[in-house]
Amino acid sequence: MQKFVNDVHEMISESICGFVKCYGDSVVAIDHPRVLKYKHAPQSNKVSLVIGGGFGHAPAFMGYLGKDAVDAVAIGDVFAPPSADSFLAAFRAVQCEMGILCVVGNYIGDIGFAKEAIEQAKMENIRVELLIVDDDVAFDAEQSRRGMTGEVLVWKTLGSAAARGYSLEQLLGLGLRAVSQTRSIGVGLASCIMPLVGRPNYLIERGTMEIGVSHHGLFSQATCKLKTANATAEIMLNNILENLDIKSGDSVCVMVSGLGNTMSSELNILYNHIHTVLTEAGIEITRSFVGDFFTSLDMMGATLTIMRLDEELKQHLRTPAYFVGLNHFVLPG
Amino acid sequence: MQKFVNDVHEMISESICGFVKCYGDSVVAIDHPRVLKYKHAPQSNKVSLVIGGGFGHAPAFMGYLGKDAVDAVAIGDVFAPPSADSFLAAFRAVQCEMGILCVVGNYIGDIGFAKEAIEQAKMENIRVELLIVDDDVAFDAEQSRRGMTGEVLVWKTLGSAAARGYSLEQLLGLGLRAVSQTRSIGVGLASCIMPLVGRPNYLIERGTMEIGVSHHGLFSQATCKLKTANATAEIMLNNILENLDIKSGDSVCVMVSGLGNTMSSELNILYNHIHTVLTEAGIEITRSFVGDFFTSLDMMGATLTIMRLDEELKQHLRTPAYFVGLNHFVLPG
Repeated sequence: MQKFVNDVHEMISESICGFVKCYGDSVVAIDHPRVLKYKHAPQSNKVSLVIGGGFGHAPAFMGYLGKDAVDAVAIGDVFAPPSADSFLAAFRAVQCEMGILCVVGNYIGDIGFAKEAIEQAKMENIRVELLIVDDDVAFDAEQSRRGMTGEVLVWKTLGSAAARGYSLEQLLGLGLRAVSQTRSIGVGLASCIMPLVGRPNYLIERGTMEIGVSHHGLFSQATCKLKTANATAEIMLNNILENLDIKSGDSVCVMVSGLGNTMSSELNILYNHIHTVLTEAGIEITRSFVGDFFTSLDMMGATLTIMRLDEELKQHLRTPAYFVGLNHFVLPG
Repeated sequence: MQKFVNDVHEMISESICGFVKCYGDSVVAIDHPRVLKYKHAPQSNKVSLVIGGGFGHAPAFMGYLGKDAVDAVAIGDVFAPPSADSFLAAFRAVQCEMGILCVVGNYIGDIGFAKEAIEQAKMENIRVELLIVDDDVAFDAEQSRRGMTGEVLVWKTLGSAAARGYSLEQLLGLGLRAVSQTRSIGVGLASCIMPLVGRPNYLIERGTMEIGVSHHGLFSQATCKLKTANATAEIMLNNILENLDIKSGDSVCVMVSGLGNTMSSELNILYNHIHTVLTEAGIEITRSFVGDFFTSLDMMGATLTIMRLDEELKQHLRTPAYFVGLNHFVLPG
């Protein structure tokens, strides 16, 4: 496997360790190997925000710790949920009077372990509410939607609102609305390599692409011949606009994220057309993000996420968020 | 070629166009297809900073526009220098009383075209000084060093100093000192695909790695068997520490950058060991950056950059820099 690695079984722990060394001004390890917290968390005047998920989605999850951002993360194995004791350790690390909001993607394992930890936390008088993000439109018809890049926009919104003193109930309400207004879809061009096996976990034939590929690459909606960037952008857009019933006059936030091995020039090309199509349709793009925000190891491909905005969501997407893994040059420490 | 692209000949222009659409609050196009400028440049109370180089090094070069950052960029073809008329258009776009500092990597083409443009600018009474960055230690013995990821730390330093009112002479002096204290080295694990040909421009055999690979992948110092991340980190470190003669008690800034298709978990693993070795050697790491700062299309590999710091350099590396392509969530507009 052509990777910078020592012992593949130590990959996650060494990566977390290097991350803490790099961002030691803002991030601290606690007495659990799979939990990190923002240095200044918990704060007495805000709800603590906890997120969790599998490893391999960098900069998620640990990169989203920071000021006006996430307070603690629970980190699983590659593409596998964090354990209940990770979630519980995260809750304990940032418990505070105003309570904790825990946000996970819509996956059975993540939800199950988070709920188990919430039950245990309750016995310790730690109050935690759970918010589930289900933005991936790919499997909407057949089964419940899964969590995808939309989680990032939800964290951003909640981080801002929590910093502005929202109560746990208010934060959960805002989060539910943000989730209901957010949809994503992925397109895969080449699969990722699973570190423990050193090989791809599936194959995408050259000259083809997977529409509606899941964040773990294992499933997709349809395989088709490789299309132009513009045609691909339109397929992604149409899926989302239809699912969210977005119309002329609506305001949206757009996020185009690489899945790992995608050049930012490719993401810019996709966004170039997405911007044109939305603008011509009379849809206002209030904010846009293009980059690697939620990857799948070294998968080749991209996701498109759209959140429809009301005034409150707009306001929270506009405020600065100092995500440690994304804003290297402006971190306040 | 498994890429999001329409017409490969339009890749650069469409990518630039998408970038401007995404960062329209901070970046504007001018009357030259290969030049972008920071929206609020030029400013009367500061020297303008212009950089330029080939396409394919995202987030360089256009991602480094912004507040307390770069004022204009000239963009070449893939791995090819910007034309003299691009540099000249960039100079015209941000000309101001305090003058312009133009920074390029040590490549014959980039320097030649920049100098040609500087001569023409002089005839229009636009004063431009040139700073050449030569941080890549790989070919130090045989030929002059080339420019590499170290350019980013030089831009960061100069952006801060320019915003604080340094005169052109002071800025050039600081830049020369920053360059003299900065060294980089690259390691390649797999080559990049040249978009116009749809194939790699060279081959790295599986199970081997290229030490001292150039930023364009075409040359390297040595081919060897694939080593562990820690052994690789030590080779990179030793090359730089020796070349810069860094000793116990020195303060440094460390940057580990991916070359395109490198997971941030791998970069964290490299940094984990680099931090340990430097700390044990009594070298103080004042600042560290781990991420994709200067890529080579979709090359698999990483670069290590170290800048030895004095008090003035430390101060300028500490201030915030709002690079539009890197600090998505905190841009002041």
